Amino acid sequence: MHPVQLQVALDLVLLDEAVRLAEELDGVAEILEIGTPLIFRQGISAVTAVKQANPQMQVLADLKIMDGGALEATIAFEAGADIVTVLGVAHNSTIAGAVREARKHGRKVMADLIAVADIAGRAKEVEQLGVDYVCVHTAFDIQESHNPLAELTILSAVVPKEKRAVAGGVKLSTLNEIIQYCPEIVVVGGAITNQPDRRAAALEIKRRLIADGR
Amino acid sequence: MHPVQLQVALDLVLLDEAVRLAEELDGVAEILEIGTPLIFRQGISAVTAVKQANPQMQVLADLKIMDGGALEATIAFEAGADIVTVLGVAHNSTIAGAVREARKHGRKVMADLIAVADIAGRAKEVEQLGVDYVCVHTAFDIQESHNPLAELTILSAVVPKEKRAVAGGVKLSTLNEIIQYCPEIVVVGGAITNQPDRRAAALEIKRRLIADGR
Repeated sequence: MHPVQLQVALDLVLLDEAVRLAEELDGVAEILEIGTPLIFRQGISAVTAVKQANPQMQVLADLKIMDGGALEATIAFEAGADIVTVLGVAHNSTIAGAVREARKHGRKVMADLIAVADIAGRAKEVEQLGVDYVCVHTAFDIQESHNPLAELTILSAVVPKEKRAVAGGVKLSTLNEIIQYCPEIVVVGGAITNQPDRRAAALEIKRRLIADGR
Repeated sequence: MHPVQLQVALDLVLLDEAVRLAEELDGVAEILEIGTPLIFRQGISAVTAVKQANPQMQVLADLKIMDGGALEATIAFEAGADIVTVLGVAHNSTIAGAVREARKHGRKVMADLIAVADIAGRAKEVEQLGVDYVCVHTAFDIQESHNPLAELTILSAVVPKEKRAVAGGVKLSTLNEIIQYCPEIVVVGGAITNQPDRRAAALEIKRRLIADGR
């Protein structure tokens, strides 16, 4: 039994702040996510900078790879990323290409099931393609109308718990329900990064994950 | 009647080369695409640099937006992009968010139908969401096994020609067939950027588009 891993998503922060958060969240978050908007703004060097600021922490590059799986995963791994994301809606050969590069580099791939219609079917397929984590992800653009627990229920039925991840609008008030499904990784963004004391907010969430986790 | 627009995709080049190509391709390509790998490597400032190098040319930021439609489109437009791409597999609200920002900024959105199963159905939907272009796109990872003409045929039946675009492995030998479908934009990558004389290669393709285009 080990506690759920906390992944903190850095989407809207600038690079300086991302580096500061890598230090602030030391010993609390296991994974620091360099979010897609941050990569668009700063390029992949944001991954390198955060990894250098805290080499103990795993860094996830949220590239949401949709094409050129091997090539784009390599960009992330060469910059120092421990984990890269590939979209579940991508072609199998794209996902397989990213996985192949991950094995070469001794790194990991997370498949992001955002906008996947058949969660059960696709989760099984991407797992067979060799991804390390399968993430149900409520898009930012539909968080007001969408209940992530339904997808997490489906995921839990088909993917072993050490590969389960959940993302999208996770906050303290929804955490108790989420951890019933024993995810390996819970991704939290604004509920930590928008708080005045981000380390305290992360610690409160982390304590919940330790207390109620598997 | 005006000729097909030539969009040249810069995926694997570095920033210096991208800027050089913006000058080399002046008067030949209408649109210079800052490809996803280039944006990952250099960040969105690559768009700004290329636009400054040749303000006459339209610059497309190939963000392949999958979430945070308004936010990510804004990143592209504020950097100077004339066109941004959003994935056809994204949620409608993500596509609508990108379109809304495009209207605010007086810019454009191209929906990329890569990995869309129902091309006819989704092409119509994204057009109704207000995108300016609908692009059938053969993924790099499946170019050996995939025939793009089938998708272009379907697209041509449901989307007016001023909104049609085609991408993915387009080369001189496939051009004659492609232009039968009167696309507004033809995207060419390696068939220009991997040639020793890139302006000459682009000119040869451009001549074909002018001669046989609508």
